[in-house]
Formats: sequence, C-alpha cells, structure tokens
Amino acid sequence: MPNESINNSVEILCIGSELLLGNILNGNAKWLAEELASLGLPHFKQTVVGDNSTRIKEEVIGAAKRCRVLITTGGLGPTQDDITTKTLAETFNSPLEESKEILLDIEAKMQSIGKPMSINNRKQALFPKGAMVLPNPSGTAPGIIWSPNSSFTVITFPGVPSELKIMWQKTASLWLKKNIGQGEIILSKVLKFSGIRESELAETVPDLMEASNPTLAPYAELGEVKLRITAKARTIEKAEQLLNPVNKELRHRTGLKCFGSDDETLASVVLELLRKKGQTLGVAESCTGGGVGAALTSMKGASDTFVGGVIAYSNSIKQKMLDVPSDLLTQHGAVSEPVVKAMAKGVKKRLGTDWGIAVSGLAGPGGGTHLKPVGLVYFAVAGPESLESKAEQFGAHYGRLGIQKLSVVSSLDQLRLTLLSQGYGHDSIAFKT
Amino acid sequence: MPNESINNSVEILCIGSELLLGNILNGNAKWLAEELASLGLPHFKQTVVGDNSTRIKEEVIGAAKRCRVLITTGGLGPTQDDITTKTLAETFNSPLEESKEILLDIEAKMQSIGKPMSINNRKQALFPKGAMVLPNPSGTAPGIIWSPNSSFTVITFPGVPSELKIMWQKTASLWLKKNIGQGEIILSKVLKFSGIRESELAETVPDLMEASNPTLAPYAELGEVKLRITAKARTIEKAEQLLNPVNKELRHRTGLKCFGSDDETLASVVLELLRKKGQTLGVAESCTGGGVGAALTSMKGASDTFVGGVIAYSNSIKQKMLDVPSDLLTQHGAVSEPVVKAMAKGVKKRLGTDWGIAVSGLAGPGGGTHLKPVGLVYFAVAGPESLESKAEQFGAHYGRLGIQKLSVVSSLDQLRLTLLSQGYGHDSIAFKT
Repeated sequence: MPNESINNSVEILCIGSELLLGNILNGNAKWLAEELASLGLPHFKQTVVGDNSTRIKEEVIGAAKRCRVLITTGGLGPTQDDITTKTLAETFNSPLEESKEILLDIEAKMQSIGKPMSINNRKQALFPKGAMVLPNPSGTAPGIIWSPNSSFTVITFPGVPSELKIMWQKTASLWLKKNIGQGEIILSKVLKFSGIRESELAETVPDLMEASNPTLAPYAELGEVKLRITAKARTIEKAEQLLNPVNKELRHRTGLKCFGSDDETLASVVLELLRKKGQTLGVAESCTGGGVGAALTSMKGASDTFVGGVIAYSNSIKQKMLDVPSDLLTQHGAVSEPVVKAMAKGVKKRLGTDWGIAVSGLAGPGGGTHLKPVGLVYFAVAGPESLESKAEQFGAHYGRLGIQKLSVVSSLDQLRLTLLSQGYGHDSIAFKT
Repeated sequence: MPNESINNSVEILCIGSELLLGNILNGNAKWLAEELASLGLPHFKQTVVGDNSTRIKEEVIGAAKRCRVLITTGGLGPTQDDITTKTLAETFNSPLEESKEILLDIEAKMQSIGKPMSINNRKQALFPKGAMVLPNPSGTAPGIIWSPNSSFTVITFPGVPSELKIMWQKTASLWLKKNIGQGEIILSKVLKFSGIRESELAETVPDLMEASNPTLAPYAELGEVKLRITAKARTIEKAEQLLNPVNKELRHRTGLKCFGSDDETLASVVLELLRKKGQTLGVAESCTGGGVGAALTSMKGASDTFVGGVIAYSNSIKQKMLDVPSDLLTQHGAVSEPVVKAMAKGVKKRLGTDWGIAVSGLAGPGGGTHLKPVGLVYFAVAGPESLESKAEQFGAHYGRLGIQKLSVVSSLDQLRLTLLSQGYGHDSIAFKT
C-alpha cells in the first residue's frame, strides 16, 4: 500500500530566495497542499530552495525518483534570477524551443498595457521540447506540464498567487484529475460557517469527523471556518450518494451558522438574498473604512443590489453625510449603539435604499479606554421595517487589520441573519443542500 | 567560497502532517528564515514532511551531509504522532535518557494548570544521550541542541509559534551566534516601486544586479515591485557603508517610481505627505467600492488626515452624494474623464477636505464595450488649487479583483505624484535615502 500511494504522490518545490530570506509567507504551498488534499492525491513533501540552479537540479532529480508529479512555484518571471524553466530543461538534457504562440500572446499582453516587449520577456516563451504549455490568463509567465520520462511529470507555476490559482483551476487540476487520479471520482464540498470557532464546530460533529468516506476536514481563517467533505467512489452518482447525506446532516446540526458552500461568500449570499427581492443596500462605515463596500463590490454583478455608501471615518462626516445628530455623538461617543443605529438609518435615507448597514468601532492600536477597549465594535442593520444593532468585543490581540477584517465579516453576517429571520431566502441559497 | 558558506549553513525541517494537508500556513519557516538572515547565517533549504519516521530520517540524514545546523519544528508534543526526538535518536543510533530535571519541570507545569501528568507527558522528558536541553519557558515541550557528530548540530523546536519564538530568543539564537556565526552583520533594506514592472526595473539596474555585496533581489506582487538590498560586513557601520551608496544610486536611477522603503506603503506615504501640511483627504469610489478607503484606514493614525468618503457605485449616488451633473453622466458615461473629475471635486466640496480623489472604471467581467473595454479606469485628484485626471487600461485579463486592486494602487500613486509635483514632502519621506 505505501508503495502504491507513493507512485502517484505529488511533491511541491517552491523556488525563490525571498522565501529563504523570510520576506514572504509561503501561501502557495499551503494553497496547493489544500488543493491536493481535495483531489485525494498523496502529498508527503514540500521543499523550498533559492534561485540557484545547482540546488534546483538536486531537488528535481531527487523528486523524480520519489514521486509521480513535482509541482514547482516561482522562477518563471522575466528577470535574470528566474531560472526554473531553463534549469528543468538542463536537468533532463532537453533543448529549449521558442513557442511562437506564447510569444505572440506575451506581445499582445504587453501591448494592451502599452509597454514595449523586452528581451527578458522573450525568455518567457522558451519551453523544453515536448512540454505542454500551461496557460497563464492573467500574467505574462505561462507554466509547463512536462513529462521528461513516462513516470514523472513536472508542472510549473509562477510565484504570483493570483496567477497560480487561476492556472491551477483552469488547467492543472483538470490534468491531474484525468492523468494521475486512481480512476476514482473525488467529490468534495466545502461548507462555510460564521459565528462559530473551529474547535466548537469539531465538537458538534465528532462522529462524522471519524468517518473515512466521506472524510471531514476543518479549516479556519480569520472570521471564517470551513469544513471540507470529501467522498471517493467509482462514479459521480455513488460519490454524491455518500456526500449528500453528510452535507444534509451537517447543515441540520449547524443551522444558521452555515452560511454557504464552495464559492459562496457572506457578500455573495447577502447580495443574492436581496437580489431575489429586488431590494437595494447601502453601507455606512467608520472603523472598516470602506472594507464592507469593497467586500460587496468584489462580487461580480454587485451593482444590481449594492448602490454605494458613506465612509464616515471622522465624526464630522457622520453628521454631514449621514445626519447623525451631534448630541448623540457628544453623549454616547462615536463607538456606541445609538450612533451606529443613526448611521444605518442615515445611509438608508440619504441613499434611498431598502437596507442600510453600519459599523463603528475601535480598531486601535490607540484610542481604547477601560469602558471602550480596542476591539469593541458596534453594528446596525436598518431595513424597510426594522432597526437592529449588536456589539462585538473582538479583543485587541487581533490587531488593527484583524479587527477590521472581523468587523467586515460580522457586519455582513448580521445583515444575513436579519434577512433570514425576516423570511428572505426561504427555499433559496441559504437552505439549499 | 561555496564550500565555505555551505559549511556553516542552516536548514529548516518542519514536521507536521497538518502542513501537508494545507491546514495551516508555515509561519514558523518564514519567521526562522528572517531570523537566520539577520544573524547572517546562510540558509539554502527548507523542507516540510509529515509525522512519519522514515521520511524524517531520510531528511535528517541528507541534511547532516549538506549543512552545519538543522533546525526542526514540530513533533515535540505529548501525543502519539509526536515522534521528532525519538526519530532523531534512532537516526544516529543514540539511546534516549530521561532528564529528571525536565520531568520535574513538566510535572510542575501540569500541576499549575490543574492537569494530571500523563504517560505521554513523561515522554517529553526523554532526550538523546549528550543532548543539551533547549528550555521551553511557556510550554511543556522542551527542545534539544544536539551534535550527534562534530560537524552537525540539530536544534528542535515545538510547532507552537509563540513557544518557538521565545525558545529561539532566549537560548537558540545566542547559541548560534556564539558557535556558528562568522561574526558577520547582514543589513538589508527593501525599496518599493509603483508604475514600473519587475522586468523594467531589472533593466534599469543590470550592473547593480550582478554585484555580490550588496546583492539586489527583485520581487513583484500585483501593483507593487520591490527590490531588496542586502549587505554583509564585519560591523554595522561597514554594512551601512556598503548599502547606502547602492540605495542612493537606486533612488537616483528610479526617481519618483520609488515610493518608499521597508514598512512604508503607498497609503502610509500619502497620509504622511498630507499630515506634514496638516491637510485632509476624502475619497470618491466607484469601481473600487471602498478599497481606497480601506487601504488608507488600514494605516494606524489615518484619522489625522483621512476623514472619509463616498462609495458612489451607482450613477444615482454619484449625483445625489457627489453632485455629479446628470448631463455629464448622460453625455460621457460614468467611466469618463469629466465624470471622475466631477466626483473628485464633489467629494472635496461635500466633505470639506483639502484633497479629494476619485476612481471610476470597468472592473468587469461584464459591461465592457469596444471603446470602453473592461480594465479601463479613470482617476482624478482635486486639490486646493488643482484638478487632474488620468486614464489607465489595465487589461481585462487581470480579472475583477485584479483590476480593483490595481485601481487602488494607481489612485494612491496619482495622489502621491501630484503632491510631490506641488512640492509636498520636500526633504521628507519620499526623498530620504
């Protein structure tokens, strides 16, 4: 058994001196590891080396003996220290050939941004003979899927995370599924939760956590907990038969704490709930400074529903642009329930929307007091016939950016729960299984 | 030379299946790498493997041949899958011995948190014969500093970041400085650039890129290019003497394209330029949806300068909240120079600020036309005595989020360049060397 699994195992080799200098976190390795787990591919080793051909070669030669697929990140850019493709070709004594197609594509991309094609950019169109090009829709550096021999394939990605992700999703993951998978279908679904900690969630489902097919794996990021359900079977129907009951049971046990699945976000879920009713939304933001609006507008088609908002960072803007009465500010302070309610009401009225949401809190590091410590944030939702507020104490230890991020999540979640409690989305997205 | 540096080089081996499943980011590797760089110790390789004794042994044997010191993280806890110490002892055929002192210490720690001493905890007091104990002041799992032979030392840390850091700072870093360091200081500085691509930047400084002390390393993220200058010398003064002229030369060659260094961001730089003059700023955002405001308010102390803004996502909000004349919208469309200028003027006037900046563009994926394709974004800056605009064509291939991020960067950069052209920041941040 161990031999069998090693035979289709995948290793990751991250190339870049900036990783060895500790300049950046290796988010690519984490992201790829998660994707490999979801494909059910065995993954036993990750390595980081610098932009050094001797060390890259050493690692590639070692990996070619141990694993079926080596995924590399980094070193595909146009500069002198980008040597991944060249070094791979040298490792397996393969000549480099220029791809006319890719050269034209790079030229077109440079032209579209009004920049000249440099000699260095031209380097990016060179590939080992026989390699398949792994297209890069959002950058100039394509990767390769190359099998220098029949039992070993190397797949290269640039180090830029957004480019790597789109290349993985559009091409590489499909290639792996088709060519490396064991003929088994791997079906997975990620459920997303708010207002619950990873450990609490795990305690809600200890029996399901121990099952072997489907398996459950929890993941947590700041403000969001996820649970991945993965089922394996010979056919898609069989995999669905395994996965669906667990999905249903999880939704049942976690109730409203589960806000969606897979690509859904809190922003997409609230926009969808409002879209179905043809209603509109405006935001009034103090400590988040535009973060709630940015989260909403990161969703395509947000304009159906989201019309805009007011970033009321200073008190004078809260008065001028949101009609918050000055005595409320004097009496209760900007970080208070009465003020955040007035902000939500104000933005709804000024913008003429059906709904208005507001956030006002202390993101720190300064400005906290004993009664109102850093991390205290108030939230309000004003609807056609309701006005509700809540307070959260996130704790100063999250830091300014952490508190801002948690506030964005919490604000959108408050709107979601309010809409659901008022009967929005019945038989829709939030309850689908 | 390569042999010399390999002889005192340090590798990192992170042990933990959770890293291979992509459950967590490898923050320990980044942190340790940065510490090694600051000690001037050469560091060429990082590896991640799971809690598997065969693979751990393989890595340790390889490292013992290549490097002077191997740092491991993880696998020191009390559970069954914590096997680091035992596996190391086996690798070098060393017996394990119980440390009475550590056993008492673990007992005392368990008692202080009201937990009984388990058999598994007892395991944590076992060490290879001859190993020095690396104390863990904040947890039960101590590490070791162990030289199984005269040319190789292994230093073990638990995976918990806070415990690792304190153990490093109190003991391990001092041991390394004394026993491994060559007495060299490493000094580095990161310069940050906007409006230039990584490849263009590299072509501006090919001669400097080839130098060996200081070295230059470029890296790029979406919308930002960085260049790290690293100098090595016997003393901090000597390192500065090497670094400073290169820093100066780089600033000279790149001019206004270099917006700052190290922890500075475009947002912090523009806030600082305005703060020095006691002036205020407001934002009017369409396609960025609040992203410019969020970038500004992510900086602590932003409230001195940034008062707020209007997210004018729909045309009606542009009219209602920013006084954009409806005939401008009809005649030129929302994505146009006249409209973005009116937005910047409008927000400045409505909010009563000294400066107003505005963004309006097509983030896509829908809504593009031949004349106004997805990726076209207009920017304006209204100041006390000026009103300027520009257009950028980022290209649809960046995708919605990419276009939004590039727009935030470009908007802040337009403000920075406008302020500098009007004499703001003379002898200050943007020109310091």
